[in-house]
Amino acid sequence: MNRSIIIYILGWVIRLAGIFMVLPALVALYYHEAAGLSYILCAAACCIAGWIATRKKPSDTKFYAREGFVTVSLSWILLSIIGALPLVLSGEIPGMTDALFEIISGFTTTGASILTDVKALSHASLFWRSYSHWIGGMGVLVFILAILPLAGGQSMYIMKAESPGPSVGKLVPKLQKTAVFLYAVYLSMTVLQFFLLVIARMPVFDSICTAFATAGTGGFAIKTDSIAGYSPAVQTIITVFMFLFGVNFNFYFFLFVRQIKDAFHMEEVRWYFFAFAAGALSIAANLTLAGNGTFGYNLHHAAFQVSTIMTTTGFATVDFDAWPSFSKAVLVLLMFVGACAGSTGGGIKVSRFLIYFKSACKELAYLIHPRSIKILRLDAKAIPHEVVRSANIFLVAYFAIFAGSVLLVSLDDFDLITNFTAVAATLNNIGPGLSLVGPTGSYGMFSTLSKYILMFDMLAGRLEIFPMLLLFSPSTWRVR
Amino acid sequence: MNRSIIIYILGWVIRLAGIFMVLPALVALYYHEAAGLSYILCAAACCIAGWIATRKKPSDTKFYAREGFVTVSLSWILLSIIGALPLVLSGEIPGMTDALFEIISGFTTTGASILTDVKALSHASLFWRSYSHWIGGMGVLVFILAILPLAGGQSMYIMKAESPGPSVGKLVPKLQKTAVFLYAVYLSMTVLQFFLLVIARMPVFDSICTAFATAGTGGFAIKTDSIAGYSPAVQTIITVFMFLFGVNFNFYFFLFVRQIKDAFHMEEVRWYFFAFAAGALSIAANLTLAGNGTFGYNLHHAAFQVSTIMTTTGFATVDFDAWPSFSKAVLVLLMFVGACAGSTGGGIKVSRFLIYFKSACKELAYLIHPRSIKILRLDAKAIPHEVVRSANIFLVAYFAIFAGSVLLVSLDDFDLITNFTAVAATLNNIGPGLSLVGPTGSYGMFSTLSKYILMFDMLAGRLEIFPMLLLFSPSTWRVR
Repeated sequence: MNRSIIIYILGWVIRLAGIFMVLPALVALYYHEAAGLSYILCAAACCIAGWIATRKKPSDTKFYAREGFVTVSLSWILLSIIGALPLVLSGEIPGMTDALFEIISGFTTTGASILTDVKALSHASLFWRSYSHWIGGMGVLVFILAILPLAGGQSMYIMKAESPGPSVGKLVPKLQKTAVFLYAVYLSMTVLQFFLLVIARMPVFDSICTAFATAGTGGFAIKTDSIAGYSPAVQTIITVFMFLFGVNFNFYFFLFVRQIKDAFHMEEVRWYFFAFAAGALSIAANLTLAGNGTFGYNLHHAAFQVSTIMTTTGFATVDFDAWPSFSKAVLVLLMFVGACAGSTGGGIKVSRFLIYFKSACKELAYLIHPRSIKILRLDAKAIPHEVVRSANIFLVAYFAIFAGSVLLVSLDDFDLITNFTAVAATLNNIGPGLSLVGPTGSYGMFSTLSKYILMFDMLAGRLEIFPMLLLFSPSTWRVR
Repeated sequence: MNRSIIIYILGWVIRLAGIFMVLPALVALYYHEAAGLSYILCAAACCIAGWIATRKKPSDTKFYAREGFVTVSLSWILLSIIGALPLVLSGEIPGMTDALFEIISGFTTTGASILTDVKALSHASLFWRSYSHWIGGMGVLVFILAILPLAGGQSMYIMKAESPGPSVGKLVPKLQKTAVFLYAVYLSMTVLQFFLLVIARMPVFDSICTAFATAGTGGFAIKTDSIAGYSPAVQTIITVFMFLFGVNFNFYFFLFVRQIKDAFHMEEVRWYFFAFAAGALSIAANLTLAGNGTFGYNLHHAAFQVSTIMTTTGFATVDFDAWPSFSKAVLVLLMFVGACAGSTGGGIKVSRFLIYFKSACKELAYLIHPRSIKILRLDAKAIPHEVVRSANIFLVAYFAIFAGSVLLVSLDDFDLITNFTAVAATLNNIGPGLSLVGPTGSYGMFSTLSKYILMFDMLAGRLEIFPMLLLFSPSTWRVR
């Protein structure tokens, strides 16, 4: 393994983390908050440490799959530790475990909080939490790829390991340009949402934080009642933008290069929209039949809730834990579906489900006509055999981690719904679950062991399992 | 599709069903019960109808995979309808839906009951319920294969569709001999258990019914408190035999032909034993730490409960719904693991988990060393590519049915634990779940829709999904 290049990239991660922390320091300055000092201190320390580590580019730039996975998982762990420091230093979240939980929840765009009263935080820390969603949403290493010309085409391994979805392709021949395009779309949509929120009379600070949390499909809110207190107009804007950030960014690329037809023929985007519509309509019908108000009112909240769960954002406008069983079952199922590949959302991803569904149909046809030959296609392109196999193994690893986590978290002796949905909500990077971890609850009551399990789940969910699992494989570290 | 051969075999199923029903009629005669009349009537009607349908063997004996799947799924549906008739006719379970639910639960060896007071049933019907477990355990079509020389090697397709596990092999070159051997082992072990139970002073009628329900890993009990009222000696005998009937029958074949070493080297059997031991010990430890009595006492009940859940039998000696969360989580996870392939137990099967685990390890190694070549082996034999693919698709189809069922059952608006474990307990052919369908509950409160969904799940679980799914595929019925 080429350790020097890994350390070099990690150095860049530290340097960037320092630069990122300047913004919350400025927020503290504006609001005259003492917490700003911790952010400035951390920022300075990171910039110096990062500068030392990146002074000299290593001569050996060999970089393969193994290095890619290790770099990505170590970067995320390092970024989380650094991100937790100002929260601890400022005394706002004194325990390192809790601070780590909170910021991993931020960077992985989960939005699960150990806090019961977010309003007690300084503006700087509220901003840092929401900003961490934005940083983690598109990926910090994709950002590095955008600004740093690494060792030629081999940095593809980094992008593959950090970006969500069963297969990652370059949009344009040059990887750096792909990364720049992704960040440009990401930034413009965030800015657009910010302005729309301000026009809908959301306060400016709230609009910035909410736009960040929506863009990264994170879900940290700056109010204790999440989004419930804002006007229906604000809620509707957030519903639409959560949905838009859950769309595969290839869709926007097709729009950008004026291949409108290709964009709207993307099977994943079509099914994503279909699942969203079906979920929202069936919940609205269920709520209305249960005598929960008018259909219009219910559709408004159902659309918000389905959008927030499917895109794995995790905002809330109502306490859906009090909804009827069917509506809750729909939400729990959508927790696993997740958003599109190549978006900022989490979950298993719509495109994986398409692969699963198509393979199952193929297998059934094969059982009846054993000599039939059928090729799996997505968007009229054949799906490579490796992608199908990898998607299947993903499912296996996913459920293995899921089961193991539920088992260990159960040692805390909370009810099964709490344990089950806490794991579902962290592994899928959603945030709120049901029962004790429902929209009105928090993750603060879990034991330290459970918190570390759930942190692992958040990271495994964001990085799509394999990079985190490989950290535990001896052959990853073996020197050939 | 060759319809005449399918109808011919279905005729044999009807004929056999008639013969099977003579036994409960004799029980009724012994106890002077009026219910006997319904059994005699049904038996006579079936024998006549079956005799007419099987009078002439069709000249065209072409029989392929498609015919195999259709025959198996239609046989099971037909057998269930016939089996429900005496329960309805005798007035003991007046509704056809409830009677169907009860007897499908019997034949599929699930053991989920809609009854709240089983003691109100006649001895004949209690016997019929337990006997249905025994018939369904090894499979009615395997029985037909044992007595009826069908169209040469092509009847393999029937055995493949009815027998549980990722791949089914013949033990001896002739399929009929394999079927005879399986039934011989099955019968002798049942008889052995019966004698041991009688020696442990269980009443004779109870011993017969319990031996049938254990052998088929069914779980219908003839007491309202299941097995709780019997002595610890009886409970221990049942624990051991449930475990033994969950072992892959190839193990007994190896013992029979004195290949002792091969028997004890079967990876599936080793892991099955390991999962059983780990489950029982961890639950016993959890219960003891929770202040629930001595370790010995807890181990006795933990071993019984783990054995009953893993083998998907579904007896109960205690109300495990009142256990701590960790113990309940272990049981829920083991619900999905299930027993060995080639046993009478249900669930996903230990050998499939071995395949999943080995494929995942292979994929991780492949991610680090993309040019590595590794062959998956089970018991030192390479696993064919088709078996791995089929096991993966099985998992996908399994979770799809699981999710769909939970969603539809949720319309009844019971709590999520009830809905989730009701589907888990029927799709895995276990019987009791948690909450309202726990060991002290019943399935009687579900709506008619939910009952039919759960019946489908029981059949899909017993026949391992594909035969039931293919019934709904248009290409199954298309004439070429």
